[in-house]
Amino acid sequence: MNGLEKLLKRIIQRVNINLREFDFDVTPCIEKLVPFEDLETVHGFYAVSPLHTLDFRFSRSNLAGSYFLGKCRATNAILFKSDIRGDELKKKGSLFKEQGFEIPLTKNEGIRIEDSFLLKTLVHNYSHDPEMPERFTISNTVATHFTNIHGSPTDGSFLAPFATVDFTTVNDCIIGPYSYIQAGEINHFHIDYGTVWVRSPGQFNFLYKFPEKALRPYIDFEPGKNPKGMFIDFINNHEEEFVKIFATVNRQSPIPVPDTASLDRFAVVLGDCTVAENVLVSQRAYLENAHLGKGANGQENCFIIDSNLAGNNVTAHGAKLINTDLDTGVFVGFNSFIRGRNDRLKIGKDCIIMPHTIIDSSGALAIEEGCLVWGIITGEQDLQENSIPLHKLEKIRSGFSRGNLLFEGNGKSFVHTFQERIQHILHSNGAFFDGKKGKGHAQKNQNISFNIIQPYARGRKKGMFPTMVIKP
Amino acid sequence: MNGLEKLLKRIIQRVNINLREFDFDVTPCIEKLVPFEDLETVHGFYAVSPLHTLDFRFSRSNLAGSYFLGKCRATNAILFKSDIRGDELKKKGSLFKEQGFEIPLTKNEGIRIEDSFLLKTLVHNYSHDPEMPERFTISNTVATHFTNIHGSPTDGSFLAPFATVDFTTVNDCIIGPYSYIQAGEINHFHIDYGTVWVRSPGQFNFLYKFPEKALRPYIDFEPGKNPKGMFIDFINNHEEEFVKIFATVNRQSPIPVPDTASLDRFAVVLGDCTVAENVLVSQRAYLENAHLGKGANGQENCFIIDSNLAGNNVTAHGAKLINTDLDTGVFVGFNSFIRGRNDRLKIGKDCIIMPHTIIDSSGALAIEEGCLVWGIITGEQDLQENSIPLHKLEKIRSGFSRGNLLFEGNGKSFVHTFQERIQHILHSNGAFFDGKKGKGHAQKNQNISFNIIQPYARGRKKGMFPTMVIKP
Repeated sequence: MNGLEKLLKRIIQRVNINLREFDFDVTPCIEKLVPFEDLETVHGFYAVSPLHTLDFRFSRSNLAGSYFLGKCRATNAILFKSDIRGDELKKKGSLFKEQGFEIPLTKNEGIRIEDSFLLKTLVHNYSHDPEMPERFTISNTVATHFTNIHGSPTDGSFLAPFATVDFTTVNDCIIGPYSYIQAGEINHFHIDYGTVWVRSPGQFNFLYKFPEKALRPYIDFEPGKNPKGMFIDFINNHEEEFVKIFATVNRQSPIPVPDTASLDRFAVVLGDCTVAENVLVSQRAYLENAHLGKGANGQENCFIIDSNLAGNNVTAHGAKLINTDLDTGVFVGFNSFIRGRNDRLKIGKDCIIMPHTIIDSSGALAIEEGCLVWGIITGEQDLQENSIPLHKLEKIRSGFSRGNLLFEGNGKSFVHTFQERIQHILHSNGAFFDGKKGKGHAQKNQNISFNIIQPYARGRKKGMFPTMVIKP
Repeated sequence: MNGLEKLLKRIIQRVNINLREFDFDVTPCIEKLVPFEDLETVHGFYAVSPLHTLDFRFSRSNLAGSYFLGKCRATNAILFKSDIRGDELKKKGSLFKEQGFEIPLTKNEGIRIEDSFLLKTLVHNYSHDPEMPERFTISNTVATHFTNIHGSPTDGSFLAPFATVDFTTVNDCIIGPYSYIQAGEINHFHIDYGTVWVRSPGQFNFLYKFPEKALRPYIDFEPGKNPKGMFIDFINNHEEEFVKIFATVNRQSPIPVPDTASLDRFAVVLGDCTVAENVLVSQRAYLENAHLGKGANGQENCFIIDSNLAGNNVTAHGAKLINTDLDTGVFVGFNSFIRGRNDRLKIGKDCIIMPHTIIDSSGALAIEEGCLVWGIITGEQDLQENSIPLHKLEKIRSGFSRGNLLFEGNGKSFVHTFQERIQHILHSNGAFFDGKKGKGHAQKNQNISFNIIQPYARGRKKGMFPTMVIKP
C-alpha cells in the first residue's frame, strides 16, 4: 500500500467513525470516483499575490488540480481539483460582530483542512462561526463533485454531489445530492436528496424539497457509481477547453479587460465575449458568447453561455446560465441551472434565483422583475408555483406553503436578509468601485502569479505532494 | 526603489567591497545585462523526486528561470536562468576523504547561495573543500553568462562570461572571460581573459593562455555591454526552441528512451535523435540529429548537433558538438566548442578534450585516438601544436612547453588524475549500470516532477519570489 492509498484509508475510517450512528460507509461513495492515476499526475496551484494573504502549509497531502488563494493549511488531505479560495478571511485586528458580541481577532484567520477528501469542492470565505473566528476548519469529511463549502466549518460529514453548505457549522451530517443548507449550525442530521433549507432561528424557515422524479434526470447519485445526469454530462462536455488552459504555465488574456475588472487566467473564454468595468470572472468560469455588464460576476465553476448579464449580477459558484438574459441586479444562487432551451429565457430586474434552482424551459419564458424563484421550473405553470414577487413575500408574517415549499416566519426579514447579502457579495466583488472607493475582488485579483505544484512521480510517496511552507 | 532594485544594489555593494583591492566595480558588468522585465516575469522550477534530497529554502530572492535539484538555500540572491544541481551532494553519515583525513558528515551537505547574482550559471556538485564539507557556499559573488561553478565554494568574486571554476575554493577573485580554473584554492587573484589553469600542488601545473586575437571572435566581453561573439550568437540562435519547452507544465518524451536512460523534460530534441542505454541528457541540453551511444551523456547547456557519440562519452556542461563524431570514451570538457565546419570532425577513442577548448576547422580534421587536446585549433597545424598523445604525456617527468602552453610536473600524474575523473563522471552518470549495480543519474533522473515558481507580479515586491520551505 503506497502513501496515497494509506491516506485514503485513513480518511475513510475517520469519516465512518463520525457517521457511525447512521451506519454509513463512505467507501463506495468515493472509492472509484477518482482514478488514482489522476491523483498521481495532475498538478495544483497556489496564488502569489501581494494583495492576498500568502500563507500556505501543505503536508502529507495530495493536492492534484487544486487551486489555493489566501491562507490555508492542508494536512492528511486529498483535495482533487478543488478550489480553496480564502480571499475574504478575517484579518488580524478586526472585530467579528455576531448577535451583540464583538470578538477581536488576534491573528489572521486561516482555512485548515485535515483528514478530508474534497473532490471538485469549492471552499470559500471565512468561518461564519463565532465560536472559532480564527479558524475555518474542514476535518474528517468527504465532499464529492461540485459541492460548495461556504464559510461552513465542517467536521465528520459526507457531502453528496452538488451539495452546498452555506454559513452553517456542520457536525456529523450527511448532506444529500443537490441539497442546499444555510442553517447556522446542524448536528447529526441526514439531509435528504434535493433539499433546500434556509433557516434563521426566530426569523424565518424556508424549506423546499425537489420532487425526486423531476430532479433525477439532472443529478443522480448511487454509492459505488459515478454521479450521473444532465449536470455531469454538461460539465464533461465542456471539460476539454479547461485542459488546454491548465497545460500552460502562463497565459495572455484572450479578450480586452478593463483596468477595473479581472478575468482569471484559468477561465475559459470562447466566441464573442465582453467584460465591462468592475466585472469579476473567477477561475474555472466558462464564458462562451457571454456579455457581462458593469459589476456583473461569474464565479468559480459557473458557465455563462450565449447569455447577457445587464450589470450588478451575481452568478454564484457552480451556477449555469444558457441562452439567458439577466436584467440588472439579478442574483443566481449556487449550482443553479438556468437554461432557455429553444427560446431565450429572460429574467427581470432584481430577481433572486434561489441557490439550487433549475429553470429549464422548452418554450419562451420571462420572469417578471423583483421575484423570488426556487425549485424546478420547466414552464409557465411551474413558474407560477415556484415564484413569488418580493413585495408580496415581504407582506407575509407567519408563513405560507405552496407546492413543495414550506415557508415559516417573516417574509420581510427573509427578503431583507437576502438583499443585504447580495449587496455584500457585489460589494466584496468590487461591483461598486468608483475609481477610488469600493475596491473588491475584481480590482484585487489582477496580476496574480500562480505557482505550480506537482506530486512525486515515483516511489513510495507517488502521488503525495512534498511538504511546503509558503510565506510572503 | 522596489525590492528587486534594492537587492541588486545590496549584492553589487558586497561584491565591490570584496574586490576593492582591484579597484573593481561590478556595476557596469551586470547593470544592463538582464532586463528587469525578465526578472519580473520568468518562472523558475524545483525538482520533486524521492531519489534526490528534497530540501529547499528560498527567501528574499529572485529565482527567474532557475532550476533546482537537491538541497539548496537561496537568500538575498538573484539567480537568473541558472541551474543549481545538487545531486551529488555529500550525504549525512558518509566520510569525506581528503589527503589522509577522513571527515564524518553529521548532516546532508547543502548548497547555500547568499548575496549573489548568478546569471545563466551552472552550479553543480559538492564542495571539494574539506574545510567546509557540509556547506557548498556561494556568497557576495556575481557570475555572468554561462559560467560554471563546479564544487567550488566562492566568496567575494566576479566571474566573467563563460568562466569556469572547478573544484577550487575561490575567495576575492576576478575570473576573466572563458577562463577555466582548477586549482584547489585561490585567493585575491585576477585571472586574465582566456586562461586555462589546472594545478595539483606537488604533482603538475597546466597553464594555457588563449591568443587574445584568436579568441576574441568567439567571446568578447566589455563591462557595460552584453557579451558578444560566436558563442553568444550560437546560443541565441537556438534559444527559441527552449521557449516552447518552458511554456508548458508537463511534456511527453519526444523520442523513445530506454528504461536505463534519462532525457530531461527541459531538453530540446529535434530532427533524428537516438538515445541508447545508460544515456543521460540533462536539462537545457540541445540535441539535433544527435545519436548518443550507450553510456554517453549530454550535460546541462550542451549542444549536440549533427553529431554521433559512440558511447561512454562525456559532453560536459556547456560543451558544444557540431558535425562531429566522437569515438568511445572521448571526454569533452566544460564550455568547449567543437565544430566541423564544412567537413566532419572525427575524434578518436579515449581522447581528452580539455575544458574550454575550441576546435573549429574549416577542412576535414581527424584526431587520433588517445590524445590530449587543448586551446584553439582551426586546422591541422594548430592540432599538432595543441595536442599530445597521452602515452607521450605520461612519459614527461618535469614539464614541457609548446605554443601558449606551459606544463610543469609529472605527466603520468596529470593523465591518471584526468582519466580517474572521467571514469568517476561516467560512473556517477550511470554509464556503467549493468541492470543491477552502478545506478547513476541516468537511472535516477527519471520521472521527476517539477514545481513551477513565480515572482510577485505587482506591488512593492514585484519580481521577488515568496519565501518557500520545501521538504519531503
